[in-house]
Amino acid sequence: MLKVTQQPDVISFGGGLPAPELFPTREIGQASVEVMEEYGAAALQYGVTEGIPEMRTWVAERLSTRLHKLFDPAEILIVNGSQQGLDLIGKIFLDPGDHVVLENPSYLGAIQAFDAYQARYLTVETDEDGIVPASLERVLEHADPFPKFLYSVPNFQNPTGRTLAADRREAIVRICERFELPIVEDDPYGELRFEGEELPSLASLATSGCVIYSGTGSKIMAPGLRVAWLAIPDHEVREKIALAKQGTDLQTGSLAQYVFHRYASKRDAFEAHVDRIIETYAQRRDVMLQTLEATMPAGVRWNRPQGGMFLWASVDGVDTIELLKLCAAQKVVFVPGVSFFPARDVHDGMRLNFSNASEEKIQEGIARLAAAVRASKN
Amino acid sequence: MLKVTQQPDVISFGGGLPAPELFPTREIGQASVEVMEEYGAAALQYGVTEGIPEMRTWVAERLSTRLHKLFDPAEILIVNGSQQGLDLIGKIFLDPGDHVVLENPSYLGAIQAFDAYQARYLTVETDEDGIVPASLERVLEHADPFPKFLYSVPNFQNPTGRTLAADRREAIVRICERFELPIVEDDPYGELRFEGEELPSLASLATSGCVIYSGTGSKIMAPGLRVAWLAIPDHEVREKIALAKQGTDLQTGSLAQYVFHRYASKRDAFEAHVDRIIETYAQRRDVMLQTLEATMPAGVRWNRPQGGMFLWASVDGVDTIELLKLCAAQKVVFVPGVSFFPARDVHDGMRLNFSNASEEKIQEGIARLAAAVRASKN
Repeated sequence: MLKVTQQPDVISFGGGLPAPELFPTREIGQASVEVMEEYGAAALQYGVTEGIPEMRTWVAERLSTRLHKLFDPAEILIVNGSQQGLDLIGKIFLDPGDHVVLENPSYLGAIQAFDAYQARYLTVETDEDGIVPASLERVLEHADPFPKFLYSVPNFQNPTGRTLAADRREAIVRICERFELPIVEDDPYGELRFEGEELPSLASLATSGCVIYSGTGSKIMAPGLRVAWLAIPDHEVREKIALAKQGTDLQTGSLAQYVFHRYASKRDAFEAHVDRIIETYAQRRDVMLQTLEATMPAGVRWNRPQGGMFLWASVDGVDTIELLKLCAAQKVVFVPGVSFFPARDVHDGMRLNFSNASEEKIQEGIARLAAAVRASKN
Repeated sequence: MLKVTQQPDVISFGGGLPAPELFPTREIGQASVEVMEEYGAAALQYGVTEGIPEMRTWVAERLSTRLHKLFDPAEILIVNGSQQGLDLIGKIFLDPGDHVVLENPSYLGAIQAFDAYQARYLTVETDEDGIVPASLERVLEHADPFPKFLYSVPNFQNPTGRTLAADRREAIVRICERFELPIVEDDPYGELRFEGEELPSLASLATSGCVIYSGTGSKIMAPGLRVAWLAIPDHEVREKIALAKQGTDLQTGSLAQYVFHRYASKRDAFEAHVDRIIETYAQRRDVMLQTLEATMPAGVRWNRPQGGMFLWASVDGVDTIELLKLCAAQKVVFVPGVSFFPARDVHDGMRLNFSNASEEKIQEGIARLAAAVRASKN
């Protein structure tokens, strides 16, 4: 997908790329110089697997504020992008044939990470408010073998943009605690809320240490640094994941961690930067919604995410893999929804990314997409 | 180990750390600024899994020159430190119970990477000239199940500092080709030769595409960037490893790759930097050898590596795990040799790192070690 979207005349709603024009390039260069002046060789040497103390403390403080739950720096493990967190979780929890419970549809990168350990999937029903608790309960009652964990993206989910409703969060945590099922709460987009109220994280609702929380700097600073984090309250699980990381790549880059920390510690500038991302993406979402409204024929439906980078659209009676072929010829691309359903049984969906293209390109791209939809219906 | 060695008053021959005082800190800061000016957001965005084109070309050119074999940039995969290369190799080749052929002793990080896939090990006899070809042949003739690959560090091996002799290189490649056994040639220290002639790499001796070559920037620039590489001639293996990397962490940090490339492309400065590392480590090795000679009692033997970062010593009749306890009290540490033997059946060895401590500390540390050896013999 990245290889296609790098063609300059293609308008891509396909990737999950942040807006590069918002990256703080000059500031990152400056932060690198400052890190070299302040930390010198320590920022280029091997470091401990868990991450540099400065980053772990920064993450614990930020999560404590955002999620209304006290995090200890000792709980935090810095990983090489959140994809690595998912891989390590797969590595320590999964043996071939093991079950993982997924939202349906679910994030493709997670499926890919767990596939490497030959996992099988149990899917729970979801609607516009996320996981349906009764469906989760049914799945767990009948599961054989009993699953190793539930993987969920509660905020502005990838691929649907949906957010798990507040009352359902409480219900889902209680169900998982009753069944003693660990939860992997993947929250890459949680900071990118455009409107509506902040909802409690699953981690903050848990009374046991059953939630592994995954966060990342990729969406609030830049993905190219590969700085992300896991918060793992359970001591034994944390030791296992750290040991697995040691065997996997020893540590996340020292320089990247120091540079991330240096920039993020300039609090006012950093908060202004995150605000600018939120504002930009909110406008782009609005433009996408307006253009969909103005151009799409009947039979196309879409949702209105309250944050994040994606919305979800369906085209009645159209296989969006076929539609993509028409679209590629028109130089507009998206990700066909079927890839996100482990059973590959829903064919009319598509994931539309609104963070990466300018407002003009969104207008032009959605118009091209609408023309392709019309053509596909003839 | 890292946690212990970070105590300031401990003299450590234990880790495998490069000399931090040689890291080009100012230049890396400067390179970061230049990268931001030249590439801007592209150096902070997601990139393709295989690595940035500039790095892959740089690696292919450097390997082509050093190893006297033409490498194509398309063969190169940039990884997050060479430990990740080993993990990915384990991930695509190994199922639980599979055999890997190892030198005896062998690199601990490799064993740790392969352990995660529940590998079992077949060890081949080694002497001061590395793997004994007849032993390899015997092992392969009787192996059941037949192993998935041979893992070897031919230059200045970790842990022994030994180098595989020229005639044996030829013999080993021919044996592996006859048995159709892939070779993983791990060469982190190959550029750090103090004396003697450069020997042909296994990759350059192979007539088939059976050798996966692993190299790293950690020992010629800095480990904290986490930039290393695999050269994988076999197309199918390469695709599998790239796909595994995608599921594991998407990509190696874009910024780290651009910064590495920018600094390494200033050819004169970079070569002067590598020369300075070689010169410094050679002097430290000499000081360690002289101090061993001057202080050690009878019954202690050691070798004279022609490069790299480690030498190997044995203490007749002494369990070096016990010795380490005496040493830790004296504020000097090393890695007991037993850890490097998969069968854990050799107890009198120790790995001594000479790259990380100053000449004065080497003298003081070896004197402390000699005192501990004497004490252990009473």
